[in-house]
Amino acid sequence: MKKAHNITLLGAGLIGTFYAMSIQGQRSRDRIRTICALTDGEAEAFARKWGIPKWTANMKKAAEDPETDIVIVGVPNYLHKKAITLAAGAGKPVLCTKPLARNALEALEILKIVDKSGVFAGYLEDLVYTPKTLKSIAAIKRGALGRILWVRSRETHSGPHSAWFWDKKLAGGGAIVDLACHCIEIIRSFIGKEVRPTEVMCLADTVVHPIAAEDSGIALIRFENQAVGQFEVSWAFRGGMDLRDEVAGTEGTIWLNHFLRTGYEMFTAAGGKGYVAEKAEGETGWLFPVGDEVHELGYTHMFSDMFDALDGGREPVETFLDGYIVNVIMDACYRSAKTRRWEPVKLERWYKGTKKEKAKAPKKTAKGRYSLIKEERMPDGTLKQLLQDWKTGHVVQRIRGA
Amino acid sequence: MKKAHNITLLGAGLIGTFYAMSIQGQRSRDRIRTICALTDGEAEAFARKWGIPKWTANMKKAAEDPETDIVIVGVPNYLHKKAITLAAGAGKPVLCTKPLARNALEALEILKIVDKSGVFAGYLEDLVYTPKTLKSIAAIKRGALGRILWVRSRETHSGPHSAWFWDKKLAGGGAIVDLACHCIEIIRSFIGKEVRPTEVMCLADTVVHPIAAEDSGIALIRFENQAVGQFEVSWAFRGGMDLRDEVAGTEGTIWLNHFLRTGYEMFTAAGGKGYVAEKAEGETGWLFPVGDEVHELGYTHMFSDMFDALDGGREPVETFLDGYIVNVIMDACYRSAKTRRWEPVKLERWYKGTKKEKAKAPKKTAKGRYSLIKEERMPDGTLKQLLQDWKTGHVVQRIRGA
Amino acid sequence: MKKAHNITLLGAGLIGTFYAMSIQGQRSRDRIRTICALTDGEAEAFARKWGIPKWTANMKKAAEDPETDIVIVGVPNYLHKKAITLAAGAGKPVLCTKPLARNALEALEILKIVDKSGVFAGYLEDLVYTPKTLKSIAAIKRGALGRILWVRSRETHSGPHSAWFWDKKLAGGGAIVDLACHCIEIIRSFIGKEVRPTEVMCLADTVVHPIAAEDSGIALIRFENQAVGQFEVSWAFRGGMDLRDEVAGTEGTIWLNHFLRTGYEMFTAAGGKGYVAEKAEGETGWLFPVGDEVHELGYTHMFSDMFDALDGGREPVETFLDGYIVNVIMDACYRSAKTRRWEPVKLERWYKGTKKEKAKAPKKTAKGRYSLIKEERMPDGTLKQLLQDWKTGHVVQRIRGA
Amino acid sequence: MKKAHNITLLGAGLIGTFYAMSIQGQRSRDRIRTICALTDGEAEAFARKWGIPKWTANMKKAAEDPETDIVIVGVPNYLHKKAITLAAGAGKPVLCTKPLARNALEALEILKIVDKSGVFAGYLEDLVYTPKTLKSIAAIKRGALGRILWVRSRETHSGPHSAWFWDKKLAGGGAIVDLACHCIEIIRSFIGKEVRPTEVMCLADTVVHPIAAEDSGIALIRFENQAVGQFEVSWAFRGGMDLRDEVAGTEGTIWLNHFLRTGYEMFTAAGGKGYVAEKAEGETGWLFPVGDEVHELGYTHMFSDMFDALDGGREPVETFLDGYIVNVIMDACYRSAKTRRWEPVKLERWYKGTKKEKAKAPKKTAKGRYSLIKEERMPDGTLKQLLQDWKTGHVVQRIRGA
Repeated sequence: MKKAHNITLLGAGLIGTFYAMSIQGQRSRDRIRTICALTDGEAEAFARKWGIPKWTANMKKAAEDPETDIVIVGVPNYLHKKAITLAAGAGKPVLCTKPLARNALEALEILKIVDKSGVFAGYLEDLVYTPKTLKSIAAIKRGALGRILWVRSRETHSGPHSAWFWDKKLAGGGAIVDLACHCIEIIRSFIGKEVRPTEVMCLADTVVHPIAAEDSGIALIRFENQAVGQFEVSWAFRGGMDLRDEVAGTEGTIWLNHFLRTGYEMFTAAGGKGYVAEKAEGETGWLFPVGDEVHELGYTHMFSDMFDALDGGREPVETFLDGYIVNVIMDACYRSAKTRRWEPVKLERWYKGTKKEKAKAPKKTAKGRYSLIKEERMPDGTLKQLLQDWKTGHVVQRIRGA
Repeated sequence: MKKAHNITLLGAGLIGTFYAMSIQGQRSRDRIRTICALTDGEAEAFARKWGIPKWTANMKKAAEDPETDIVIVGVPNYLHKKAITLAAGAGKPVLCTKPLARNALEALEILKIVDKSGVFAGYLEDLVYTPKTLKSIAAIKRGALGRILWVRSRETHSGPHSAWFWDKKLAGGGAIVDLACHCIEIIRSFIGKEVRPTEVMCLADTVVHPIAAEDSGIALIRFENQAVGQFEVSWAFRGGMDLRDEVAGTEGTIWLNHFLRTGYEMFTAAGGKGYVAEKAEGETGWLFPVGDEVHELGYTHMFSDMFDALDGGREPVETFLDGYIVNVIMDACYRSAKTRRWEPVKLERWYKGTKKEKAKAPKKTAKGRYSLIKEERMPDGTLKQLLQDWKTGHVVQRIRGA
Repeated sequence: MKKAHNITLLGAGLIGTFYAMSIQGQRSRDRIRTICALTDGEAEAFARKWGIPKWTANMKKAAEDPETDIVIVGVPNYLHKKAITLAAGAGKPVLCTKPLARNALEALEILKIVDKSGVFAGYLEDLVYTPKTLKSIAAIKRGALGRILWVRSRETHSGPHSAWFWDKKLAGGGAIVDLACHCIEIIRSFIGKEVRPTEVMCLADTVVHPIAAEDSGIALIRFENQAVGQFEVSWAFRGGMDLRDEVAGTEGTIWLNHFLRTGYEMFTAAGGKGYVAEKAEGETGWLFPVGDEVHELGYTHMFSDMFDALDGGREPVETFLDGYIVNVIMDACYRSAKTRRWEPVKLERWYKGTKKEKAKAPKKTAKGRYSLIKEERMPDGTLKQLLQDWKTGHVVQRIRGA
Repeated sequence: MKKAHNITLLGAGLIGTFYAMSIQGQRSRDRIRTICALTDGEAEAFARKWGIPKWTANMKKAAEDPETDIVIVGVPNYLHKKAITLAAGAGKPVLCTKPLARNALEALEILKIVDKSGVFAGYLEDLVYTPKTLKSIAAIKRGALGRILWVRSRETHSGPHSAWFWDKKLAGGGAIVDLACHCIEIIRSFIGKEVRPTEVMCLADTVVHPIAAEDSGIALIRFENQAVGQFEVSWAFRGGMDLRDEVAGTEGTIWLNHFLRTGYEMFTAAGGKGYVAEKAEGETGWLFPVGDEVHELGYTHMFSDMFDALDGGREPVETFLDGYIVNVIMDACYRSAKTRRWEPVKLERWYKGTKKEKAKAPKKTAKGRYSLIKEERMPDGTLKQLLQDWKTGHVVQRIRGA
C-alpha cells in the first residue's frame, strides 16, 4: 500500500471546496482530517459536508494538529504568510494556493521562512496542471511547435464572490492579482520555465466596478529569448468564464479552451434547476457546462503531483520559487501600469544552474549581403528566390536556371 | 482509512492498459496485484510496466489468487464467460468489460452463473461514465430537456488493432458488437434505463474491409414511450475517432463531443513524435488530442462507482443485467439486418418493480373536434390561433377578438 | 452588358422575401417587376418594400405579364402545379420552389406539362447551392473523400410559421415534405446525382404537435452503389435551426454546419432588439447568428446558376426532374413509415444516358482462400498480416520473415 | 434598370483577382473594361481570364480610358499615390485598396489630391464589410453589448506571396502595414468610428524571416472613451490564416472566426488536388476551407457599398479619411515600437461635427464615502451588500434587515 496523507486544510471557501472535492475525490487514499475556517460554525459545516473528523477556527491549532502531516493553505491572500509561518513552525510540508503573496516582498519573506525551516513547499497553481495543458507542454518539449514565439493566456469572468477579493489591501490588487497569476504561470510553462522574463508592459483599468483596484488588465511579458507572453484578465466579462490559451511556435500552434467550448453544449428552455459551471450566467438558453470541473481545471493532477513529489523526495512541478517569480512579474505589471513604460522584472531569486537562453531570431546583419527569405520551384524548372539585400534595404528576386 | 482493493486483472491488451492507467492512476488506493495475459512473457512485461507484483498466463490461478478480492475481466469476448465462471467460482466480485457476451444467449448464461454464485457483478461500460455524460444525465433527470424524444450516439474510427476483433466467431460480430454496445447503453442512459426498448431496425454493411463481419452499422431503436435511439458505428471512418452523442427533448438539446473537438486543437508541421490520441490518423497538420483519455472516456468514474458500490453494499450504475439487455438489442439488430424488418427486442430479464412507461405523444383523436397547434398575440391585440380540425383534416386559423 | 431579367414572382411569404433579398441583392442586374400575393393588400405592401412596380392578387395576370420574362413560383405546395401550368401556358421559363409537388404523381404531371410546353424549368433547392456545399461537392468530385459511403443530412427546428405547412392536405405531408426534400437532394448531390436511389426505410412520428401530419422523421436511403443516405427532420427541435451535413468516404470526411456554429458567437444580456436568425429561440444569452442568410443558405448561388443557365442555353444544376426524384423518394418514405419495411424507390423518369453504378464493396468470396485485412511492419523487421480465412470463417495472423 | 459601372482596374495580382471575382461575380451588372498590369503579357492574361475587353501596362492610359467611369487601385503600396493622382487627374471616382499609403504623410498628400480634385473616393477595407462584421456592428449599435470596453483583432499567417510586401521601402513596413491596417479599422468599427484613438503602445519584432521589416506585431490602442483595441499580426503563424475578432462590452461579447473555424471541416487522406483556402498549409489531414472567400472576406458587400454610395450621392462606409486615420495609428505604432513608450496618435484630420466622447468608467471619488460594488438577497431575506469604502480603501460588507 502506498503512503496516504492526513491533511490540515486552512480555508473553507470556494477554493477549499475545490480542494476537498479533488483531494477526497474518486478513489483517493488521502484525507482531510482537520478543517480550519473563519468561524467554528463554518468549520463545522464544512467538516460535516466532507466527512472531516476535526474542525476549528484556530489556525495555529489546526496547523499543529499532531494527526496531520501536511498543511494546505486556502485562506485569503493577506493570511498566506501567517498560515505558512504556522505550518513551517510545525515542521510540516506546506502547500499554498495562488497567488503566493500580495507582492514580491511578501513572497520573498515567505521563501525565506520556508527555506529556513526546510519544509517541503508546493505552489498550488492548478491551471498549469489541466490535462490539456500537461499534454501540450509535453508536446512542446518534444518539439511539436518548434521554437515558441508567443503565448496568450486569457482569464475573464464577471468577478469573484467573496468580499476580500475586491479589497485591494487584503488581496494585494484586483483582477491582475486574482487572475493574471494563473496566466503568467501558464505562459512561463509553455515558453519554458527556465527562460527568464525580462520586462513587462501593462495596462490596468477600472472599467465597470466602483472599486479602488483594477477590474481589467492586459500585459505583454518579454522573455530573454525574445518570446512574448500576453495576458488578458477581467472581472467585467459577460458570458461566463472565458479561459483560453494560445501558443504559437515556428512549427505549429496550440489552442486550448478550458471552459466555454469543450465539446459540451446544452440548450434548455426549462432551466437545469442546478449548478451549470463556475461563473456561468443564466440557467436557460445555450449553456456550456464542463464535465468534471476539478479535473478539467487541473486540481486532480496538481494534488497528485504534490503528494507524489513529497512521497518521492523530489520537488513538485510548481514550487514557492515559481510563486515568487509570479509575484515579481505582477509587481512589474503594477509599476508599468503606473509609469506607462516597460518595466524590468527584478528577480532576486532564480533556479540554480540555469543558463541564459539567447534569442534565436534571424540576424539582421548577415555575413554576406543577402539573406534568403524564401524560394520556390517554378513550373519551368527554374528556382525563384526572394532575398533581403541588406545593403540597399530592398528585397530582390533572383531566378536560378533550370 | 477507506477500504482499498487488491485486484486480479485478466487481460493485458489495450483495454487492460486503460484499466491499469485508471485504477492505479492519480492518488488511488486500489492496486492490481495479479495480471493474467495470454503468455507468461506478456504478463511479465505488463506487470513490470505497472508495478504489479504477480503475473501468470493461467486464468484460473489468477482468478483464485488468495491475495486479491476483485476479478476484472478484460479478455477478448469469447473468453468472457469462462473468465466470469472462474471468478464466480472463486466467490469474488467480478467486473466485466463490454460487451458482456457475444450474444444474448451467452449473456443470459453469464447472468445465471453470477446469480447462482451471488457475487457482486459490474458491467464496465465506460462511456456511460464520462464526466460530460454523467452531468448530462443529471441535468436530464432534473428536467432540463423535458421529455426525451431522440438520442443519437455515434462511434466510428478506422478499425481495431487486435486480430480477434475482426473474427466474427470470436467477437460475436463486427463493428456492431464492438462499438454499438457503447452507443446502445448511452442511448438507454439518456432516455431512461427503466424505459423498455421494444424493437429495432438495422442496416449492417461490409463496405471497406474484406471480412466476414460487418464493418458498418446503423440502427433505430424504438422504446415503449415512443422515444427513438439511433446509433451509427463504423470501422471505415477516416479522420480519427468520432465519438459524439446528441439528445433532443421537448425543452432542450445536448450535444457532446468526446474526442475530436474538445477545446484542444493543435497544428504541427514538425510532428509530435509521440502519441496523439486513440485512433488518431497522422502526426502532422491539425490534430485534436484529448486531455486525459482515461478520464474523458469515463474509466475513472466507472471504477470509482464500481468500487464504491462494492464498498457501500449497493449496485453499481451498470450491472450485468444492463450488459444482457445490450446483447439482446444487438441480437435484434443482427436479425433485423438480415430480415430487413423491424425486429422485436426479446427480453427475458428486466429490472424488478418497473412500470411500463406510456407514450406521451399528442393524441390524434382529441375529445373535441379541434386541437390547438399554436397561438400568437397580434399587434392589434387579437389572438391568432392555428387549429387542427380532426374532422376535415385541415388546419384552420381562428382570430379571437381584442 | 450581360442580359438582365424581369421577373414575375408568385408568392409574398417568407420564401418570397428570401427570393427578393437574393435576386435584388448586392449589385444584381435582375429585377422583380410583378409580385403576386394572396390579396392585393399583401401584394402592394411587398411591392413597396422591394421597389417592385406592379402588384396583383391574380396569378394568371402576373404570370402572363408581357413585361416579364421569367416566372418564379414561391406559393404554397398545393398551388405549384397551377402556377407552373400558368407559366408554361405563357411560354415563360419557370423556376419552382421546393418541394416540386405534394407527391410523385403530381410531380410527374408537372414534368409532363413542362416537357410539353418546352419551357426552361429550374428547381429552387437552395441548400444544394450553399457555398460550403458547392465547394464540398467539387472536392468530392476531385476525389478528396474517395468513394462516398454515407451522408447524413439534418434539418430540424421548432416548426414553420404559416398555417398551410401544418395542413397535411395542402402541404402533402408534414416535416418530411417540408424539410426532408432539402436533405434528400443534399444527400444525392454528395453521393452523385447519377447514382440511383433504390429503397428507403423510414420512421415518421408525431411527437409534440397535435396535428394529422408527422412532426419528425428519420430515414435511410439505399443507393445502387451501396452508399447510404440518412436524413433527420423535425419540427420539435429546441435551440434554433439545426442544419448540418456529414459525409464519409473511404478517404475522408466532411462536416458542414450551416447555421448554429459558423464562427459567429454572441452573448448578450441586453438583447439585440432585432432579428437574430431564422428560427432563433430567444434574444438573450448565447446566440449564434449567421452572417448573410440568403448567401449562406444558397439562394444567391442558386439564382445565379438559374439565370446563367437560362442565358447560356444549358440546364441548371437543379431541374424539375430532380424535384420529381425527390418526390418519389419522399413517397417511398411515407409508404415505408406505414408498412414499416424497406420500400422501393419507383422512378418512372431518370437522367438520359446514365449507367448503373455497381457497388464497390469488398467481395466476400475471394479468388483464393484468404483476404488481406491489414498488414504492419514490426520493429524486428517482420511483416505482420491479418487475413480473413473464408474457409474457416476465422481471422488468422501471419508473420512473414525479415 | 439601375446604373451599371465600367471599371478600370489597376493591378492584376492576388488582390486584383479577388476584386475581379467579386465585381464580376454572381449576377452583377458592373464590369471591368480595362485592366492594367506591370507588363502587357500579365495584363492580357488577366483580361482573357476575366473577359475584360482592354488591357495595358500603361497606368495613365488605363486611368484615362474614356469608356470607364471608375478607377480601382489594386497596385503595390508604393504606387497608390501615383495611381490615385492619375485617377483624380482624369476626374474619376477612385477606390483604393488598403493600406491607403505607406505612412501618414503620404496618406495626407493623397487626401489633399482627392479633396482638391473633388472626386468620389472610397477606401477598400474589405474586412469591415464581412457579413458577420456588418451584422455585429448593427447589433452593437442596437445596444446588444452595452458599452464596448475592448476589441481584439487578430490576423496572422505564414507570409505574403509577392516580393514587394517583404520590402520595407516599397510597402512602408512589414506585417503591421500589411495586416494591422485591417485590424485597426475592425477595432474602430466596433468601438465606434467617431471615437478618437488617442495613443498606442506597440511591440514589433522580426522573429523568423531574415528581413529588414517586422514580421510580427502586437499593439494596444487607447481611445478617448477608455476603450482599448488590441491587434496581433504575424507572418510567422503556422496552421493557415488565423482571422479572428473578439469584442467585449458591459452587456455581452462577440466572437468572430472568419477563416479556420466557420462550420466547414474536412479530413482527407487523398488530398483535394485543388485550392483549399488562402494561406492554407497542406492538402491532407484536417482542413478548414471557407465557403465563398470573396463573400466571407467582405469583398462583395464592400463593392456594393462603394458603387451604391456613388450612385446614391452619399459617402461610402469607408473613406480615404478612414484610410488616413489608419495610417496615422500605424505610424504611432512604429514610433512606439522604437521608443518603447505610449505614443500619441497625431491626427491632423478628423470627421466634421463629432464631439469628444468621455470615458464612462466608474468614478473613484464618489460623492459619498461608499460605492456599491454588488448586492445579493440572502435566503433569510436580508440584503447583503459589498461596498468600497473610499476613506479606508477597504471593501466592507453590510447586511440590511429583512
